Amino acid sequence: MAQQHLDPPIDPAASLPAPPPPVLGRGERPERPGAPGGEDLADYLRAQATEFLRSLRQHRENGVGGSAAVRGESKAGDAGHGGPDDAGDAALALRRSARRISGTLHTFRPLLDMEWSEGIRPELAWLSGTLAREHAYAARLERLLTALHRLSGSAVPPARQAAPADGAGSGPHARAAAVQERGPLTVGAAKAGALLERQLTLARTRAHSAALQALGSSRFHAVADGVAVLASEVPLTPAAASADLRPLAAAAEERLCDAVSTLPLMTAGLAYNAQALIHGLSPDPAPHPQDGPWHQVRLLLRLHRYAREVLRHGEQDASDARLPAAGAALNRHRDASEAAAAAASAARTPRIAPATAYALGVLHADQRHEVEAARFAFQQAWQKRTVGAP
Amino acid sequence: MAQQHLDPPIDPAASLPAPPPPVLGRGERPERPGAPGGEDLADYLRAQATEFLRSLRQHRENGVGGSAAVRGESKAGDAGHGGPDDAGDAALALRRSARRISGTLHTFRPLLDMEWSEGIRPELAWLSGTLAREHAYAARLERLLTALHRLSGSAVPPARQAAPADGAGSGPHARAAAVQERGPLTVGAAKAGALLERQLTLARTRAHSAALQALGSSRFHAVADGVAVLASEVPLTPAAASADLRPLAAAAEERLCDAVSTLPLMTAGLAYNAQALIHGLSPDPAPHPQDGPWHQVRLLLRLHRYAREVLRHGEQDASDARLPAAGAALNRHRDASEAAAAAASAARTPRIAPATAYALGVLHADQRHEVEAARFAFQQAWQKRTVGAP
Repeated sequence: MAQQHLDPPIDPAASLPAPPPPVLGRGERPERPGAPGGEDLADYLRAQATEFLRSLRQHRENGVGGSAAVRGESKAGDAGHGGPDDAGDAALALRRSARRISGTLHTFRPLLDMEWSEGIRPELAWLSGTLAREHAYAARLERLLTALHRLSGSAVPPARQAAPADGAGSGPHARAAAVQERGPLTVGAAKAGALLERQLTLARTRAHSAALQALGSSRFHAVADGVAVLASEVPLTPAAASADLRPLAAAAEERLCDAVSTLPLMTAGLAYNAQALIHGLSPDPAPHPQDGPWHQVRLLLRLHRYAREVLRHGEQDASDARLPAAGAALNRHRDASEAAAAAASAARTPRIAPATAYALGVLHADQRHEVEAARFAFQQAWQKRTVGAP
Repeated sequence: MAQQHLDPPIDPAASLPAPPPPVLGRGERPERPGAPGGEDLADYLRAQATEFLRSLRQHRENGVGGSAAVRGESKAGDAGHGGPDDAGDAALALRRSARRISGTLHTFRPLLDMEWSEGIRPELAWLSGTLAREHAYAARLERLLTALHRLSGSAVPPARQAAPADGAGSGPHARAAAVQERGPLTVGAAKAGALLERQLTLARTRAHSAALQALGSSRFHAVADGVAVLASEVPLTPAAASADLRPLAAAAEERLCDAVSTLPLMTAGLAYNAQALIHGLSPDPAPHPQDGPWHQVRLLLRLHRYAREVLRHGEQDASDARLPAAGAALNRHRDASEAAAAAASAARTPRIAPATAYALGVLHADQRHEVEAARFAFQQAWQKRTVGAP
């Protein structure tokens, strides 16, 4: 994701008015000629705003209505659909730039017109949240069905997938799958899969409708207008031009480090600490309270990463080699946490068969195991980062 | 366990005829005056046989019939029983010496009268197997109920157990437990616990009856007579007196190392490899086939340990610091594997509630997670042993 930003935008802001030349004022800039300043912030926000508008245009051209149908087919393993999911890609790009704009407005808020930025930030969060939901339900279903196949021993390992079709009926995996098709608990796994598919597809369809409705709303048009302003003229404060961006970026990093320091990293670093499944039989359908601080760190890590993207136009920093791994671990943590909750929630469906409930219990525990594995991975990545730093 | 053997037997073989002086023959003995030989083997077997007979006497004196009742109370957390479970301890000691005699007869079989040792070995295995079953069911139930409490968030952490009673009602753990008493899935955990208690207590009672029956059988009396022979005169071959025990002990170690080399240790050493739960939804009620090689290594490690105990009277060897950890990991592997199977088996009980089945699914996955953790622990212990060896 970080690399993607380094690529030039596909639709560069060539037609937009050129940014005014940077105004040098008092401060550290003369002493540190490479220090990133207000103009770098403006450049970054303009680029993200341009990307937002481009994605929005692409999303409209590809037709929003087709997206769910295409993805629904892809989900069911139907080979009938051809081209890439353009509308889905556009929605992804739209969310990506919305998150970056919102995060940057937050981290560098002393340098931006307060009223304007405080007005648009929650609206951008609403938009990216609304657009994210449909994708999240689809990804959750995918994750749970993949896990069910793995747990049934019917997952085809990568090497087998490339094998010719006439070889698919042999080998221990294929045999196990064939045996399990008759077994009572694999009936349970199949029923659990069907139940999850029903529930999460319904949720996804609703999220799709909500996204469609949002994109047609006057609320959305107000957001798009706000971003269009940003693409032409970033409302910086008078002091911004002479400001050094680094203290504000450092503050974002400090908030991240403070939040990380509250995590139980000692425990997380011990493999198989069995902490994530505590309360695994809790009747509370809400996500585990122990996951909250990790979700918070995930958001702060993202803000830190965006702040670094802004600075990248200024000086380079080599101490971030482990950040992508840490971020990936926290995404996996969030996904597994939500998948585990979805399995637990499905198990509360009235009148399900015991075999279905059993499979959902195994699945829930498996995903909580994934939560624990993700914390371990984060600890490893973070430790390397800290150890590796000067 | 290894240390226990170093302690002098409570009832030493003082009244037994003194062993004949060692006969020095050809071979390496003159060159290596400390090399353990046939007489060390005879000493070890005599000591174990004496311990076997002492345990048997103690077991009879304490009354076999009381054992199950006392342990049944202890299981339910009843504080009413007072003294130690003497009959249970005696049965444990009986099994311990039976295993050591049987294992030693196996490892050093070229030095023992073939007909005699091949006759008594399967009988010793039958005896220790029969006696082990009752304890195994009790331990399995204990493990599963402990896990259910942990998974319900109702397990009291060690720090809290020492706290005064008036503090027990506060804190997140106590609050969570209080909430969960009303939750539908904790009903599931409670029902799962009751079901497991019913099934495993029945199995334990049957095992107890079988053990009682075995101890009163003529088959058992024949074993005891055989061990009594061993306590007075070990049937060594003529060549045994001049033999060096170390090549046979080394062969036992080699069999262990060969078996370890077939284990997937690379995978086991990667934390959270998620291998143990593959086939977690398999309909086969038999233990996982992937566990077999680990169980085999557990037996070979035990034989290696007993062979080292025999040699200990000769020379010392400091390279075994990690053996206890490796052995403990394999015991945990076996226990967790069997507990997971018991949870899966209970889930096949007809007409159970979905909430019960769900809890059993979580429990099964939790125990398979334990299996994986035990493999990781073994890999760590074994690696240290190999790395640390000269």
